[in-house]
Amino acid sequence: MDFELSEEQRAFAETAREFAAAEFAPHAARWDAEAFFPKDAIAKAGELGFCGLYAPERIGGLALPRLDATLVFEEMAAVDPSTTAFITIHNMATWMLGTWGTEAVCKAWGEDLTSGRKLASYCLTEPGAGSDAGSLKTRAELQGGEYVINGGKAFISGAGATDVLVLMARTGGGGAGGISAFAVPADAPGISYGKKEHKMGWNSQPTRTIAFDNVRVPADHLLGSEGEGFRIAMKGLDGGRINIATCSVGAAQGALNAARGYLHDRQQFGKPLASFQALQFKLADMATELVAARQMVRMAASKLDAAHPDASTYCAMAKRFATDAGFTICNDALQLHGGYGYLAEFPLERLVRDTRVHQILEGTNEIMRVIVARKLLEGDSDIR
Amino acid sequence: MDFELSEEQRAFAETAREFAAAEFAPHAARWDAEAFFPKDAIAKAGELGFCGLYAPERIGGLALPRLDATLVFEEMAAVDPSTTAFITIHNMATWMLGTWGTEAVCKAWGEDLTSGRKLASYCLTEPGAGSDAGSLKTRAELQGGEYVINGGKAFISGAGATDVLVLMARTGGGGAGGISAFAVPADAPGISYGKKEHKMGWNSQPTRTIAFDNVRVPADHLLGSEGEGFRIAMKGLDGGRINIATCSVGAAQGALNAARGYLHDRQQFGKPLASFQALQFKLADMATELVAARQMVRMAASKLDAAHPDASTYCAMAKRFATDAGFTICNDALQLHGGYGYLAEFPLERLVRDTRVHQILEGTNEIMRVIVARKLLEGDSDIR
Amino acid sequence: MDFELSEEQRAFAETAREFAAAEFAPHAARWDAEAFFPKDAIAKAGELGFCGLYAPERIGGLALPRLDATLVFEEMAAVDPSTTAFITIHNMATWMLGTWGTEAVCKAWGEDLTSGRKLASYCLTEPGAGSDAGSLKTRAELQGGEYVINGGKAFISGAGATDVLVLMARTGGGGAGGISAFAVPADAPGISYGKKEHKMGWNSQPTRTIAFDNVRVPADHLLGSEGEGFRIAMKGLDGGRINIATCSVGAAQGALNAARGYLHDRQQFGKPLASFQALQFKLADMATELVAARQMVRMAASKLDAAHPDASTYCAMAKRFATDAGFTICNDALQLHGGYGYLAEFPLERLVRDTRVHQILEGTNEIMRVIVARKLLEGDSDIR
Amino acid sequence: MDFELSEEQRAFAETAREFAAAEFAPHAARWDAEAFFPKDAIAKAGELGFCGLYAPERIGGLALPRLDATLVFEEMAAVDPSTTAFITIHNMATWMLGTWGTEAVCKAWGEDLTSGRKLASYCLTEPGAGSDAGSLKTRAELQGGEYVINGGKAFISGAGATDVLVLMARTGGGGAGGISAFAVPADAPGISYGKKEHKMGWNSQPTRTIAFDNVRVPADHLLGSEGEGFRIAMKGLDGGRINIATCSVGAAQGALNAARGYLHDRQQFGKPLASFQALQFKLADMATELVAARQMVRMAASKLDAAHPDASTYCAMAKRFATDAGFTICNDALQLHGGYGYLAEFPLERLVRDTRVHQILEGTNEIMRVIVARKLLEGDSDIR
Repeated sequence: MDFELSEEQRAFAETAREFAAAEFAPHAARWDAEAFFPKDAIAKAGELGFCGLYAPERIGGLALPRLDATLVFEEMAAVDPSTTAFITIHNMATWMLGTWGTEAVCKAWGEDLTSGRKLASYCLTEPGAGSDAGSLKTRAELQGGEYVINGGKAFISGAGATDVLVLMARTGGGGAGGISAFAVPADAPGISYGKKEHKMGWNSQPTRTIAFDNVRVPADHLLGSEGEGFRIAMKGLDGGRINIATCSVGAAQGALNAARGYLHDRQQFGKPLASFQALQFKLADMATELVAARQMVRMAASKLDAAHPDASTYCAMAKRFATDAGFTICNDALQLHGGYGYLAEFPLERLVRDTRVHQILEGTNEIMRVIVARKLLEGDSDIR
Repeated sequence: MDFELSEEQRAFAETAREFAAAEFAPHAARWDAEAFFPKDAIAKAGELGFCGLYAPERIGGLALPRLDATLVFEEMAAVDPSTTAFITIHNMATWMLGTWGTEAVCKAWGEDLTSGRKLASYCLTEPGAGSDAGSLKTRAELQGGEYVINGGKAFISGAGATDVLVLMARTGGGGAGGISAFAVPADAPGISYGKKEHKMGWNSQPTRTIAFDNVRVPADHLLGSEGEGFRIAMKGLDGGRINIATCSVGAAQGALNAARGYLHDRQQFGKPLASFQALQFKLADMATELVAARQMVRMAASKLDAAHPDASTYCAMAKRFATDAGFTICNDALQLHGGYGYLAEFPLERLVRDTRVHQILEGTNEIMRVIVARKLLEGDSDIR
Repeated sequence: MDFELSEEQRAFAETAREFAAAEFAPHAARWDAEAFFPKDAIAKAGELGFCGLYAPERIGGLALPRLDATLVFEEMAAVDPSTTAFITIHNMATWMLGTWGTEAVCKAWGEDLTSGRKLASYCLTEPGAGSDAGSLKTRAELQGGEYVINGGKAFISGAGATDVLVLMARTGGGGAGGISAFAVPADAPGISYGKKEHKMGWNSQPTRTIAFDNVRVPADHLLGSEGEGFRIAMKGLDGGRINIATCSVGAAQGALNAARGYLHDRQQFGKPLASFQALQFKLADMATELVAARQMVRMAASKLDAAHPDASTYCAMAKRFATDAGFTICNDALQLHGGYGYLAEFPLERLVRDTRVHQILEGTNEIMRVIVARKLLEGDSDIR
Repeated sequence: MDFELSEEQRAFAETAREFAAAEFAPHAARWDAEAFFPKDAIAKAGELGFCGLYAPERIGGLALPRLDATLVFEEMAAVDPSTTAFITIHNMATWMLGTWGTEAVCKAWGEDLTSGRKLASYCLTEPGAGSDAGSLKTRAELQGGEYVINGGKAFISGAGATDVLVLMARTGGGGAGGISAFAVPADAPGISYGKKEHKMGWNSQPTRTIAFDNVRVPADHLLGSEGEGFRIAMKGLDGGRINIATCSVGAAQGALNAARGYLHDRQQFGKPLASFQALQFKLADMATELVAARQMVRMAASKLDAAHPDASTYCAMAKRFATDAGFTICNDALQLHGGYGYLAEFPLERLVRDTRVHQILEGTNEIMRVIVARKLLEGDSDIR
C-alpha cells in the first residue's frame, strides 16, 4: 500500500491548481450569476489535455489512469465545481466515443473533443427514466443504413451548447439489454432543445431537455454493438461517479480553505473566531471528513483502473460518501462565515448550491445505497 | 397542559393559509427569481392585521400572543419563507416602536406600520458587530434637542425600500449598557444605502448596508430611555427568534407536503416512489422532526407570552432546533424529488435557499448554544 | 395551548422524585450489577399508587391521564430506567386486565396488581414474531369451558418472577383478527420458564422465554372477546410506547444532570471542563434535544388521553424520537465524563445500557417509522 | 498510490483471522461475562509474533511497519476487541521499552515481552491528569543510583496482572518537559493495586489504579533520557491511536458480518429482513463508513511508518473517525438484530460495550479534535 502521490502526480495537480487560479477563479462567481457557459475557458483547459484526460490516445487523449484524472478535477473544482463538473462529463462522453466509436466517428470528432474545441453531452436520463435508467423509451430504428431516432431526454448538461451527443436509445426490446449507444451530431435535423432550466446551481453549464423527432444518423454512429449501450452507460457512470465525487472533494477543500482563512481574519468578542473551541472542533471534523472522502474517491479510482471485480461497488461507495461529505463541509463552511457566507460576494453559498446536485446525479445517493447493499447481500463479496 | 389549538386559533391559521395561497403562491417563485420586493402583497397582509400581529393596540396592532402570531407566520412561510420572514421582522420592529416609542413617534408611524402601508427595518448588526452585537460602534450624540447619528449597519432587511429604521446606536460608553434605540426616518438626510446584496436566498426582500453621516433625528425619536437599547434589542430578538423559527417550521411543512405528493405521483421501477421503504422511513423522520420543531416553537412562544423567567433560553432552544430541522427537512424533501428538486420549477430548492439563512440570523445557532449553555451551567435553572 | 404543568402535577412529580431518591438511588447500581429484581421497592412504589397509575378505579387504579403517569415514570427513570421500565410494563398489563377483564379476573388480581403486591408480565412477542406481532403462533383452544394454551413467548419482562401473564394467543385463523387476550396465572401447570437472559442492560428485571404446554385457564380469563386481542395489544402498546419513551426522557435528564455537575467539578488544563466551549455546545444540544423529546412524549400522551384519531401516530413519533434522543444524550453524557463515564461507579454507562433497549422494544424504531409513514402517505391525515 | 494489500500482507491477515477464530472466538463471550484475563491465549498470540509486531528486533520483535500490525489487530478485534486492545497496548509498551530501553532493561524483559510470556502495562493517566497528560504529578527522584517513585496512576490496562510497567513520572519541573519514562517491575516493593474496576466493557482485561509509595528502580530503568518522557509517550500514543482505531475497525467488521448473516436468516412479514429496503440502506451506509474508517487508519499508519511530518495529525484524524464509526456501526448492527442484539448470546452488545471506550482512551476524541484543529489553524500545514 502507498498513500502518497508521486512527484509527477503532484506536479500534475499543481498545474491544474494554477490553471484554475488563473482561468476560473477570477470569473467563477460571474459565470454563476450570469449563467454563462465558459466555452473559451474550457477550451483552454483542453489545451492542457484536461478535456481528454483518460480518453484513448487514438483520439488524442492522454489515456491517464482515473486516479490521475481526479487530481486535475479536484483542483479545478476547488474553484468552480460547476464548470469542472461539465468538463468531467465531457471527459466521460469523450472517453466513451473514443473507446467504442468507429473509425469514422473517432475521426469526425475525436481530436476536437479531446482538445476541447468541441464539446460533448451525455444523454441517458429521460423525464420518466431517472433512477430506473434501464427503462428508457427513446428509440433508434435501423432503416436503410441509418438509425432513425425518436424520443426525448432530460437534464442534459451542456445541451444546446455542445457539438456531439452520446445518446442511449432503445434498438431492441424492453430492459437494459435492448439499449444501444450512439454518437449524434448535436445539430442534426429533427433535434430540438428545451428552454434553459433555471437551477439551484451548476449555472455555468446549461441544462436542457432534448427532443428527437426522426433524427437520422449513419449506422456507423453506433458505439459498440447493438444492445451494448446500457453496459457502456454503466461503465461510463463508474467513472462519472468518481468524477462527480472528486468535484465534491475539491469544492469542500475550497470551502475549508476559505473557512480557515475567515476564522483567522474575523474578530468577535475581542478575539479571532479561530480561538473559539467549538468552531475549532467543527473545522477539525470538516477536515477529517474531507480526508476520508478524498481517500474513498482515490481508492475507488484505483480499483477502477485495476479493473477490480468490485470496482463498481467502490465507485458507488465513494460517490455516496464524498458527495454527502462535500455538501456538508461546504454548508458548514458557509455557517462558519455567518451572514457573509450567505452572500455571493464569498464563494461559500455558490459551493453549497453547486455541490447539492452531486448527491442527485450520476445515480442518486439512494441508488448508490441500492448498489452497495445488493453487493453486500450477495454474500460472496469481500468488500474491505 | 393542552397541546391543541383553539377553534379560534385554527380559524386564524386557516385565514393565513388562504391568504398565502391566494397572494403568495402564484408569485413566490417569480419574486425570488426577479428579486422583487412585493410591497403590495405585504400591504394586503397588513389589511388582515398581519403586519402588527403582536404590536400594541395603541398603534393599531392586534396585540395577540406570540403563539397566535406564529400560526399566521407558519402558514405564510409554507408558501414563501422569504417574504414572510420580512413580515416577521417588520412585526418585530413595529412592536418595538409601538411599545417603547413616544406619542410623537407612534402617531407619526404607528398605524401606517401596523396596516402595512409603511414598512420598518431593524438595524442592529454592523460589519464588525455580528454575534457580538453589544460591541456596535454606530454613535448617536445628543446635540441641541436632536440626536446626530454616525456609523454604519449591515445585513439590513428591507433597507432602501422601507420607511422607518429601528436603530441601535451608542449614546454612552462601551458595552451593552451604552446602547440606545431610535426610530429613524428611512429617508433622513445623511442616510445612504449600499448596493442590493446578491444572496443565496431571501431574494424577495432586499438586503443592504446603511451608512449614517450626521443624520439628525428629534430627541423624541428615542425608544425607551438612553442605555435601554440593548435590552430592547434583546427583547425584540426573543420574539424575532420565534418568528424565524416558525418560518422554518412553515417552510418545512411546505416541503414535506410537496414531498408527500411527489412520492405518490412519481413512478420508478414500475411503482410509485411512495412504495419504497427507505423513502418512507425518510419521510417519517422528516415529519417527526417537524412535529418536534413546531412544539419547540410553540412552547417557547408560550413561555414568552407568560414572561417565564427562562423564556429567553427556550426561545434560543427553539430557534436552534427549528431552524436546523427546517433546513434539513427542506433539503431532504429536495433529495426526494431527485433532479426535479434542483430545478426552480419546483419550490424545493427555493425553500432550501431561503431557510438556510435562518440558521444564521437573529443570532447564529452557535450563539443560541452559548445562550443555552450559559443558563444550564448557572446551576439554578431547571430547564425542562 | 398550555405548556405548563399544573401545581398538582408538579407535586405529583415531586413525590415521585423523592420516592426515587429514597428507594431507587441508593440501590440502582447494585441491582444492575447483581441482576436483582427489587420486588420490595416496586411494592413500595405500589403503595404510592405507582403500580396502577392509569388502571381503572374498579381494580383500585388511580385512573389518571397518561400524561400524569409520564410525570411519575420520568422521575423514577432518571434514577433507574430498568426498574422503572418494568413498572411501566406492569402498569400497562394491569390496565389491560382492569379494562377488559371479567369480574372474576379483576377480583382475583386487580387490587393486588394496582397495589404492587403482585406483578404482571405482558406476553406478546414470540421467537418468530417480533416486529410482525400479528403472525404469532401460540394457540388457545376452547375445550369444555377452558382454554388450552400451547406455544411459546420470548423476551418477557419479569417472566419467572411475576404472578399474572397478560397473554396474546391465537383462538382463530391467521392474521391479527385471530388473536385473543388472556389473563393467565403465572404458575399454572404446563408453564415453564427459560433461563434468565444475559442482557446488555435492564438487569434489574429478569427476561425469560416462556413455554406453554397444555396450560388450562377458565374461559372467563379471556380479556375482551375472542379476536379482540390484537386490538387490545395495540391499544396497550400506544401507552406502552409513551411509557418507554418517558423512561428515555427521564434517563436522559438524569444523565444530563450528572454531566452538568461533572463539568463543574472536573478540572483539566487548569480550569473546569465547564469553561470549554465545545463541551458547552454539546451540553446545550443535549438539553435542547431533551426538551424536544419531553414535549413529544407529553403531546402524544395528551393525544392518547383525548382519544385523538391520530394518537397512535403521535405515540409512534414520540417513541422513535424520545428513545433515540434518550440514548444519544446518555451516551454523550458518558463521553463528557471521559474515562469515568465508562466505570460503573458513575451511573452513565448503566443509563446507556438501559436506554439502548428502548429503541428496540414495544415496536422497534424501524416499526415506528413504518407506522408514521403509512399514516403520512394515506394522504388524508393532517399530522401537525 | 496503491490501495491493495500485498500477497504477504493478505497471508499475514489470514493467519491472524485463523488464530482469532480458533483461540478467541469460542471464549470471547465468556471472558467478557466472567471478566477473565486470558493470559494463555495472549501467550499463544505471542508465539505467532503478535506481542511484538513492531517492536525492534533487538528484543525479538518483528519490527514490522505499523500498517502491517493493523492487519493483525483488525482480524483479532473482529472477534474480541477487548483482548485485542490489551494486546495492542502491550505491543506499544513493548515497543517503547525496546526502542528507548537500556541494554539491561531490554535483556531483563525484552524477549519475554515480545513472546507474550510476560506482559506490560502503559502508565500515563492519573486521576487528575487525563486529557491534560502533561500535568501529571507522579514523581521520580534520583537518589543514589536509584529513582524513587511516588504518586498514583489510574485506568491502567492489565494492572495487577502484568509484569512490567512503562511509567511516565516527573523528574523535573512542571509541564511536559519535566517528564521521564521508566520501566518498572510490576511487583516492586511499594507498588499497590486498586480494586478491579467494574467497567461497561473491556472486561477481559483488568483495569486498576496503581499507587507508588517510595518505589525504587535502578537508574538504568530510565527509558531514553530525563525529560524525554512526554515525547516518548506521545510517540507511543501516535501508534496507540492507530491501534485502538484498528480495533474499532475490526469490531465493526465483525458486527457488519453478523448483521449481514442475520438479515438473511431472520424472517418477518413472510420474507427475510434482507429484502427490506430501509435495512439494506442502513447496511450500505455501515459498510461505506467502515471502508472509509479502514482507509483512514491505514493511511495514518502509513504516514507514521514514513515519519511524515503530519503523521500525528493523521493519527488523530484516524482515531477520531474510526472509533466513532466503529461504535456507530456496532450499534447499528445491534439494532438490526432487534431484541436479539441486546442479548449476550449474540456478540453485538459486547462489541458495542467494548468499542465504546475507544472513543475515550488514548486521548479522547475531543482531544483528537484539538490536535487536528491546532494543525489546521497553524496555516502552513497542507493536510490532504
